[in-house]
Amino acid sequence: MRIALDAMGSDRAPAVEVEGAVGALLDGRDDLTVVLVGDRDRLEAELARHPAAPRDRLLIHHASEVIEMGEAPATAIRRKRDSSIVVGVNLLKAGEVDAFISAGSTGAVMAASLVTLRTVQGVDRPPVGARIPTATGRCLALDVGANVDTKPHQLVQFAELGSVYAEDVMGIENPRVGLLNIGTEPEKGNEAVVEAYGLLEKATHLNFIGNVEGREIVSGKCDVLVADGFVGNVLLKFYESVAGLITAMLRRELAEAGIQLDLDRIFRSLDYAATGGAPLLGVNGVVIICHGGSPPLAIRNAIGVAAQSVDRRMVEHMAARLARPAEGSATE
Amino acid sequence: MRIALDAMGSDRAPAVEVEGAVGALLDGRDDLTVVLVGDRDRLEAELARHPAAPRDRLLIHHASEVIEMGEAPATAIRRKRDSSIVVGVNLLKAGEVDAFISAGSTGAVMAASLVTLRTVQGVDRPPVGARIPTATGRCLALDVGANVDTKPHQLVQFAELGSVYAEDVMGIENPRVGLLNIGTEPEKGNEAVVEAYGLLEKATHLNFIGNVEGREIVSGKCDVLVADGFVGNVLLKFYESVAGLITAMLRRELAEAGIQLDLDRIFRSLDYAATGGAPLLGVNGVVIICHGGSPPLAIRNAIGVAAQSVDRRMVEHMAARLARPAEGSATE
Repeated sequence: MRIALDAMGSDRAPAVEVEGAVGALLDGRDDLTVVLVGDRDRLEAELARHPAAPRDRLLIHHASEVIEMGEAPATAIRRKRDSSIVVGVNLLKAGEVDAFISAGSTGAVMAASLVTLRTVQGVDRPPVGARIPTATGRCLALDVGANVDTKPHQLVQFAELGSVYAEDVMGIENPRVGLLNIGTEPEKGNEAVVEAYGLLEKATHLNFIGNVEGREIVSGKCDVLVADGFVGNVLLKFYESVAGLITAMLRRELAEAGIQLDLDRIFRSLDYAATGGAPLLGVNGVVIICHGGSPPLAIRNAIGVAAQSVDRRMVEHMAARLARPAEGSATE
Repeated sequence: MRIALDAMGSDRAPAVEVEGAVGALLDGRDDLTVVLVGDRDRLEAELARHPAAPRDRLLIHHASEVIEMGEAPATAIRRKRDSSIVVGVNLLKAGEVDAFISAGSTGAVMAASLVTLRTVQGVDRPPVGARIPTATGRCLALDVGANVDTKPHQLVQFAELGSVYAEDVMGIENPRVGLLNIGTEPEKGNEAVVEAYGLLEKATHLNFIGNVEGREIVSGKCDVLVADGFVGNVLLKFYESVAGLITAMLRRELAEAGIQLDLDRIFRSLDYAATGGAPLLGVNGVVIICHGGSPPLAIRNAIGVAAQSVDRRMVEHMAARLARPAEGSATE
């Protein structure tokens, strides 16, 4: 299996990417090859710092350009044909690799994937998922990648894609699907979710458990949380920052009281980024987006998640699921 | 000044309400009278447990019915004309009290206020505000009361109302208004917020600072955060639950490590409910909604906030602000 890794994407690229890739290779399966996509000279220099790296399974694919975070995605992927993101997605499209991972511009990865890989038939807009930690495990929230003004039938597509991901990659059988809403009654919410509720109820092959309120997410009420990208994105970013605020408050208190407590360890399970990035679902290929501030561990875990997605043939399952107009399904 | 308090609203009514009211009267201004609205016999029995209560300033107004949390608001306020919520709002409408506070059904309080008090001219839908704790103080987020599918010009009305509240009640001069969005650029977001951005930019009497992302809320980037009620409500409920999850994790760790740390004290500043409830803004009267799980302190603080709102003539200021079609304002 070959996984392409955008080596120029993160805030501390390429050091973080190289360290993450080396870790994944040393600790993981023998049939795995990582293709680092980026500036060859910089990557060679970085690799020189990892003498133990298995170079036969750690290749470099040169890409001369980098798409910056501030650039408009559509323009950037058109103009920077030799950027690590565009080149990496092209490798996936050409079948030279089985998956692509990037900690660069989410918008650019989404745009390149959409244009080059295209969506699985039956998917209008590929959502980005995030595995939010809950009291009992994890919940895949999607979309958190900011597909806005999502239509009701597109929310149903998110439910289908999320269910396959939860089964294949998170190992959850018959995952419980919840619809993010402001109340539990079917008639609650805005126009889009009220209509989506009706469609989801009819999609009997899904394990739809109804509406899930903001306060119920972390209690572990559902495995797949369906949401429009506007609210999903706001929620995820807010969540990160609240955890940060609380940790900062605690650190101050602990320091004042002279108490030693390893907060990083305690809160590790809350760190969604460390759990293997955010999958872009519903395109023809395994694509994983990592946080720009990812540590090497996050990259390493993302490689593991990508390998699992390929192994379990997630994309095939999504295509099969979305293609059949299942009874009651709303993929029209 | 007379403030009506729904004494039957909270999860532990009327004990919590009575204790909160007694606290506010003993510790507050001498010209304050609290009118407890609810079952006279139960309230007399409860008051008997507070011998120090200043009974000359603590009156009972009998109401024989209670609207339960699960009831459909519109139906409930029509059928239960003698409920504590309907009676309390009627007292405010009749000018017998200057403000009304309830920890009962948010929907019923909103519905009764809308029908009986009506909105200030120029306000389509009254938003509910919540004071979210930030690293530097507090930020009024509105709407968190679930006005969904909010139109762009209604988001501008939220900005106007929030600015007046921030000035009058939170004491913030020229409050910075932010628009909750998924990115900082003006073109980001769904259709409603993109259009609202343009309208807010033209409303030069507002101190509009642009888009605010989910992660920027708790950093204190703005004083007034404008949002559709769907995302605002989800965010607020999620926030409460995340804080709860983190506290539970910590409590377990601290217990295991045998460390004494008063988490309640540390996290008190995060408890938005304790800071005086959530104002319903844009109706002709001071109305404050408290959490069903409010402790007595939250009720007491809500009484303080209500008194401040009346003192500063907040409703008059809102009416004056919304009535004038200020240059560039979008209150059409």
